[in-house]
Amino acid sequence: MNIGIFGTGGVARAIAAKLVSLGHSVKLGTRNVDETKNRSQKDAMGNPPFQEWLEKNPSVTVGTFAEAAAFGEILMNAASGSGSLPALAAAGDTAMNGKILIDISNPLDFSKGFPPSLTVSNTDSLGEQIQRAHPSVKVVKAFNTLSNPLMVDPQLVNGGDHTLPICGNDADAKQKVTSLLNSFGWKSENILDLGDITNARGMEAFLLLWVRMYGSFKTPLFQFKIVK
Amino acid sequence: MNIGIFGTGGVARAIAAKLVSLGHSVKLGTRNVDETKNRSQKDAMGNPPFQEWLEKNPSVTVGTFAEAAAFGEILMNAASGSGSLPALAAAGDTAMNGKILIDISNPLDFSKGFPPSLTVSNTDSLGEQIQRAHPSVKVVKAFNTLSNPLMVDPQLVNGGDHTLPICGNDADAKQKVTSLLNSFGWKSENILDLGDITNARGMEAFLLLWVRMYGSFKTPLFQFKIVK
Repeated sequence: MNIGIFGTGGVARAIAAKLVSLGHSVKLGTRNVDETKNRSQKDAMGNPPFQEWLEKNPSVTVGTFAEAAAFGEILMNAASGSGSLPALAAAGDTAMNGKILIDISNPLDFSKGFPPSLTVSNTDSLGEQIQRAHPSVKVVKAFNTLSNPLMVDPQLVNGGDHTLPICGNDADAKQKVTSLLNSFGWKSENILDLGDITNARGMEAFLLLWVRMYGSFKTPLFQFKIVK
Repeated sequence: MNIGIFGTGGVARAIAAKLVSLGHSVKLGTRNVDETKNRSQKDAMGNPPFQEWLEKNPSVTVGTFAEAAAFGEILMNAASGSGSLPALAAAGDTAMNGKILIDISNPLDFSKGFPPSLTVSNTDSLGEQIQRAHPSVKVVKAFNTLSNPLMVDPQLVNGGDHTLPICGNDADAKQKVTSLLNSFGWKSENILDLGDITNARGMEAFLLLWVRMYGSFKTPLFQFKIVK
């Protein structure tokens, strides 16, 4: 399948490489294609230079947000919290019309250091803002509650047995996303469909606990498993 | 040990009964003692009439917030979110001076129905508001992340093997609270000390996810276990 991913950071790279390993074609969308491709410095989050990564992943193509949107049958938002709405505005509703958008973003605000707060929370969420701004897109919130190594390799902890919440307004879209997650190694019984996109408030608020557990554990390789 | 609990709802009752079963003496603090004792209707959360509960737990005494505070060597806040700061103001700093206060409260706002939002979150928390309002008290946030049957009987799910975050500024107070939690059946390896009281932001924000999982599972008998 052709998949368009908005963003070129750690999450976008991990997912792009995984998708390629599964036989999919991937185009990453970015604001300034030449600038991104030629980037030879680590990014703000400490990821290796993009140029270096791209050389190791030569089948991945890079384009504008609009080009990635037009390319993908399924789209993923792996842009930063503050970059997400601008990225989707640049992608444009024509290219995204009717498509599934897996929204991985978190509205993290690092302006006061670590741990970050959220720029939107409690009575609204970034997932809902995205859905409201692009009503023709089928937004499925997923993967925002864990670190990128675990997204693409759930077996890294507890034999893959831990919980992945998802939410979104379109049942068929969530079914298709679940199939894609299954192909990543996620068992259906560990995927927790919370309901409509307003549940992104809970999934994004979880980050306020996640970042503090990360600060305590000093590793992003942890997850939560719901037990009943 | 003598323990004073602020509140007379489901959380206060569950913990009071557990403490009595462990040999402790408990006084519940309430705004209007006579009114509470004579209450023969279910409370706002659907709990059985307090009068009925008290008859089954005759060793538990009931007093004003100030009387419960004076009685307890350790104090617990099991008041509602909106009732917590008023309860503690009524208890008074003289009676609470230097004591440990286990803060179980969540700043839930049900004014728009279920699921609730939070009245304070993200860049502050009720736990911090309580600590700031009563600097002589050693506030330890605990037990706010799960339902009251599980607080007092962790073995109800997954053989007791799930995670209980706590936080607070005083290391010795957290040690004493951990000992009390151990006596409730909580294993030390499942008690996760996140650090100072600002971590209550994460623990209280988790409720925004908890209430949605509760809505999905239709039972409060679930918990999360951190896996690494």
